[in-house]
Amino acid sequence: MKKCDAETTVGEMKEAVLAFAKARDWEKYHRPKHLAMSIAIEAAEIMEHFQWLSEAQADEAMQRDEVKAEVAEELADVLMYCMELANVAGIDLAEAYFAKLAKNEKRFPADEDWKAKWER
Amino acid sequence: MKKCDAETTVGEMKEAVLAFAKARDWEKYHRPKHLAMSIAIEAAEIMEHFQWLSEAQADEAMQRDEVKAEVAEELADVLMYCMELANVAGIDLAEAYFAKLAKNEKRFPADEDWKAKWER
Amino acid sequence: MKKCDAETTVGEMKEAVLAFAKARDWEKYHRPKHLAMSIAIEAAEIMEHFQWLSEAQADEAMQRDEVKAEVAEELADVLMYCMELANVAGIDLAEAYFAKLAKNEKRFPADEDWKAKWER
Amino acid sequence: MKKCDAETTVGEMKEAVLAFAKARDWEKYHRPKHLAMSIAIEAAEIMEHFQWLSEAQADEAMQRDEVKAEVAEELADVLMYCMELANVAGIDLAEAYFAKLAKNEKRFPADEDWKAKWER
Repeated sequence: MKKCDAETTVGEMKEAVLAFAKARDWEKYHRPKHLAMSIAIEAAEIMEHFQWLSEAQADEAMQRDEVKAEVAEELADVLMYCMELANVAGIDLAEAYFAKLAKNEKRFPADEDWKAKWER
Repeated sequence: MKKCDAETTVGEMKEAVLAFAKARDWEKYHRPKHLAMSIAIEAAEIMEHFQWLSEAQADEAMQRDEVKAEVAEELADVLMYCMELANVAGIDLAEAYFAKLAKNEKRFPADEDWKAKWER
Repeated sequence: MKKCDAETTVGEMKEAVLAFAKARDWEKYHRPKHLAMSIAIEAAEIMEHFQWLSEAQADEAMQRDEVKAEVAEELADVLMYCMELANVAGIDLAEAYFAKLAKNEKRFPADEDWKAKWER
Repeated sequence: MKKCDAETTVGEMKEAVLAFAKARDWEKYHRPKHLAMSIAIEAAEIMEHFQWLSEAQADEAMQRDEVKAEVAEELADVLMYCMELANVAGIDLAEAYFAKLAKNEKRFPADEDWKAKWER
């Protein structure tokens, strides 16, 4: 049965990649520093899809099914290493995520005119 | 109420960051290319915590509460941009995640001796 | 006396950063893996200057003296770690550079219509 | 005739990649933002060589001729985009490099006990 964002918890994602690593005895490779490098390496692979495109071209490329499928796969790679780093480090990602979002909400008040502030 | 990985869906994460962007009229900045760059920039910030440490030192640093809290916050940043890219591109992350994991399971059979293959 | 690109050899750059590391007994930190991470971290810092800008805005920002000075400093950081990695690994960068350029010249013939090929 | 670091100036490197771009009419693609992304993408490719290796394994891998040749080629890619960004932005890299090194010399005095300071 296909998984979907509306019904999949972060915990299920974390468990799935941990089981994958355990079945291959790869936990010894999944050390924080290796995983941090791996997140950055996969992040660069997402960028490759947009390397030589203008924003307008990138927007348009993103509409194409094959680009969307490729970017989805690279995003999955980034997420997998994020989940494993959280597993290894004992981090609750949802807790960290909503805590950071709350911090950002204070730092960037919704009623400020950001356009005026940022674009000159 | 604190969120936790066991109960938080990917969909809730996606909605939260989308609402944050909408409230600030930031959707215009959240174009695929910008978000891809942002994921890579935040990924580099995770690495900074381990830049000059050996694996053993990195493992040990990861046990310290303040390092753990900092890495959790950087991971939250990476995830936020991943969620927004998925929002903007109409990608179901859970679907992509488990599809990629299934692909990896075939590519890296669990019964192969990976240690013998990889370490010389 | 100010150095300039027309008169400074790659060798001088390599020697200067090696002397800097030696004087601080930092050679023990300058191991290939650390340096590779450091190049990526500094590269991300260059990107930060353009993270939320369109190409047109980035072009314009690059004309401003303070942005130019900041980008120049980030580029210097990237180069420093490249030079140190070459030092540590015994790599002649000029040889590698012109060899790669010759390879690219064959791979991307100058008389091909790249615009027609790449832009749809 | 083979180029070498002792005799090659930064200016020669900058000119070579500029001529390469001009011959293909690629200057239109070589905008600051694109080049910044390209530096980061190539930097990630250097890291890939060390992604799953411990420092000790990375040190040892770096001794092998084929790894050295591959890393040299990735370094050449990073440098090429650095040179082009400097070309496009009108940056003198040698000037920026030695200015940054001088700044670092003040920031990190040579007579300080960095080991004691950094390692706990």
